[in-house]
Amino acid sequence: MPFITIEMKEGRTLEQKRRLTAEVTRLVSEICEVPEDRVWVFIEDLKSDSFGKGGKLVIDEN
Amino acid sequence: MPFITIEMKEGRTLEQKRRLTAEVTRLVSEICEVPEDRVWVFIEDLKSDSFGKGGKLVIDEN
Amino acid sequence: MPFITIEMKEGRTLEQKRRLTAEVTRLVSEICEVPEDRVWVFIEDLKSDSFGKGGKLVIDEN
Amino acid sequence: MPFITIEMKEGRTLEQKRRLTAEVTRLVSEICEVPEDRVWVFIEDLKSDSFGKGGKLVIDEN
Amino acid sequence: MPFITIEMKEGRTLEQKRRLTAEVTRLVSEICEVPEDRVWVFIEDLKSDSFGKGGKLVIDEN
Amino acid sequence: MPFITIEMKEGRTLEQKRRLTAEVTRLVSEICEVPEDRVWVFIEDLKSDSFGKGGKLVIDEN
Repeated sequence: MPFITIEMKEGRTLEQKRRLTAEVTRLVSEICEVPEDRVWVFIEDLKSDSFGKGGKLVIDEN
Repeated sequence: MPFITIEMKEGRTLEQKRRLTAEVTRLVSEICEVPEDRVWVFIEDLKSDSFGKGGKLVIDEN
Repeated sequence: MPFITIEMKEGRTLEQKRRLTAEVTRLVSEICEVPEDRVWVFIEDLKSDSFGKGGKLVIDEN
Repeated sequence: MPFITIEMKEGRTLEQKRRLTAEVTRLVSEICEVPEDRVWVFIEDLKSDSFGKGGKLVIDEN
Repeated sequence: MPFITIEMKEGRTLEQKRRLTAEVTRLVSEICEVPEDRVWVFIEDLKSDSFGKGGKLVIDEN
Repeated sequence: MPFITIEMKEGRTLEQKRRLTAEVTRLVSEICEVPEDRVWVFIEDLKSDSFGKGGKLVIDEN
């Protein structure tokens, strides 16, 4: 531990996911004072037809 | 906020997801006394081979 | 199933939680076409010193 | 309830998921002293390009 | 990994939580064919005034 | 969105949580190319008697 879960709209590249994993790990390791190899990162893609705000799915936002 | 996550067996239509998003948002906005545009809804489809009750996966229920 | 999780800022009354549980259950039961007694609702209180937007914890928002 | 969620790297067989569901249910039912038919199990497959430890995605581990 | 989360009504003893952690770990390790020291277990207590089924909070069930 | 959840052992200071919230938001905003005010951060404290690895609760680790 710590365990970091990043939920974001689908569509980011593998390269962005690699950067998120590496840099969020470095940051959390530094602030929480734990070795990097004990930090877990999970990335979840949110589909536009499965989430939304203000009563509308993202897919239906103009 | 608030954030509402609805996990349900896969198979519902996009129309049902639209209705859930709109009507759950309206209800939570009213009861929690927050504007609708601050209410998030997330819908997760549960696959029948990945969840179950009483020791059986849904896929194996007769 | 379905399973509904409602995460919201701490401070709502037990009465509001009762209304949310009853009315969200009725709505989801109707739209998803399942009996009410198969609908689960979970309510999670978010502490103001443990979540935030735009880089600030809610506790630090003026 | 209880509700058990098992998150693991993708690739396990349906047979392994069946065994996990049956045997974890039996164990939790016994220890928590609740009937098996009130125990829910959820299995989530983690994709190798979407999680990792020590700053690296599993897909990039040698 | 794997990561197992057990959500259950509050009230279980520390001893029950110890048994759950040890025995669920052994079982998952065996079925998923991973060493025990790579299996994580998380136990979450559900408060009776914060979850329910069929439109009623557990606290209000007779 | 994006939504970032950080689960870590209880005991970090409010100041650490403030730094995590501010700096993780800045990092994710930059990599995901979204404005900072659309990034949500949630911090969850894990109690030592409620999680563990290798079959032991953290509270029981020597």
